[in-house]
Amino acid sequence: MSDPQAAPGPDVATLAIGILGGTGDQGRGLARRFALAGNPVIIGSRSAERAVAAAQALGADLRIRGMANADAAAAADVVIVAVPWDGHGDLLKSLAAALAGKIVIDCVNPMGFDQRGAYPLPVAEGSAAQQAAAVLPGSVVVGAFHHVSAALLLDPEVASIDLDVLVLGDDRSATDLVQALAARIPGARGLYAGRLRNCGQIEALTANLVSINRRYKAHAGLRVTDV
Amino acid sequence: MSDPQAAPGPDVATLAIGILGGTGDQGRGLARRFALAGNPVIIGSRSAERAVAAAQALGADLRIRGMANADAAAAADVVIVAVPWDGHGDLLKSLAAALAGKIVIDCVNPMGFDQRGAYPLPVAEGSAAQQAAAVLPGSVVVGAFHHVSAALLLDPEVASIDLDVLVLGDDRSATDLVQALAARIPGARGLYAGRLRNCGQIEALTANLVSINRRYKAHAGLRVTDV
Repeated sequence: MSDPQAAPGPDVATLAIGILGGTGDQGRGLARRFALAGNPVIIGSRSAERAVAAAQALGADLRIRGMANADAAAAADVVIVAVPWDGHGDLLKSLAAALAGKIVIDCVNPMGFDQRGAYPLPVAEGSAAQQAAAVLPGSVVVGAFHHVSAALLLDPEVASIDLDVLVLGDDRSATDLVQALAARIPGARGLYAGRLRNCGQIEALTANLVSINRRYKAHAGLRVTDV
Repeated sequence: MSDPQAAPGPDVATLAIGILGGTGDQGRGLARRFALAGNPVIIGSRSAERAVAAAQALGADLRIRGMANADAAAAADVVIVAVPWDGHGDLLKSLAAALAGKIVIDCVNPMGFDQRGAYPLPVAEGSAAQQAAAVLPGSVVVGAFHHVSAALLLDPEVASIDLDVLVLGDDRSATDLVQALAARIPGARGLYAGRLRNCGQIEALTANLVSINRRYKAHAGLRVTDV
């Protein structure tokens, strides 16, 4: 085995992180943790007012601003997509110009729920991340942060999160950067976990974590052993 | 969180375990570990001679026999399917009578390989396990043991394997039993991870583990945190 963190990763400490759909639980949780780590963070939303309110609610001491999604996309160095699956492709297509030349991190899990629990929705492109790549030809799309529990990210009692963030993409410098971003969350480690074509099962795996959480009353995360 | 092993699981110590396609690396590795744990094991193969040879090669001190697949299916209490994906459905269909009334554990990962590595193959039924359930209406099909490294299972230097075995199925008593079987491998823990309809992404995830193994020169396994 080799130590994935033996080599110094890219310096990501000053990157401004935009979070599209950042008023949802996952987006607010990531915003909080990156801001606590010292990164400037911009929450994006369809409504600039709601983005500002969400940013303020996370704490006036944190460097979190709120903007309309398009402005957040333009202002950020790196952009996380945390919008609902419904409308995902259309929103990104409308932001293609603002996102061109940037690393776009998709953490969206296309899932349905019924009486028997969660299940993955079929995606024509193979995964939400591949759909993003298809509509954002000028961006470098990476899949990551699918499995991190929003409840844990938002919990002020939780200092450290026991989790490997699986990072998927076809551009080595981009996946290296996202791995370094993942490591900004205390306890978390960023691990390369394959090319974008292998992102569908990572998104779908969230349905299994929902089942595990229900059975064991947990906020389950994943660790990869022997790495 | 709750301890998944707080309640005593079903007693599986004396179950005879049949392994269809048991002459492959995965099958031989599982055969070795279950035999070391004290279970009688029957390796099945298209060729009874090759099954006998594989059983003998694993050690005359172990309780491992070799038989043709159909005889192994008939003789075993619980049957593990470790055959290649190509031919999976046809073989199981031909054994439906012998497998009726039994728990059938599918560990098959439908994968392709090309210059860029491993990728999941589409499966009409959703997953290999669901295909097994479709052709074995008289059996109870469980998905499990997809991610355990054959190299580690077969390595006499490896006393303990750091791994959660994800167990999928729609019958609680069957998944409980398979979880107890998983715990017979030193270091391993069996965890319920959802219904059979959520097995496709677990099978496909093996492609990500191949990517991880290549990048980090590891024999990667998964642990679920907070459980």
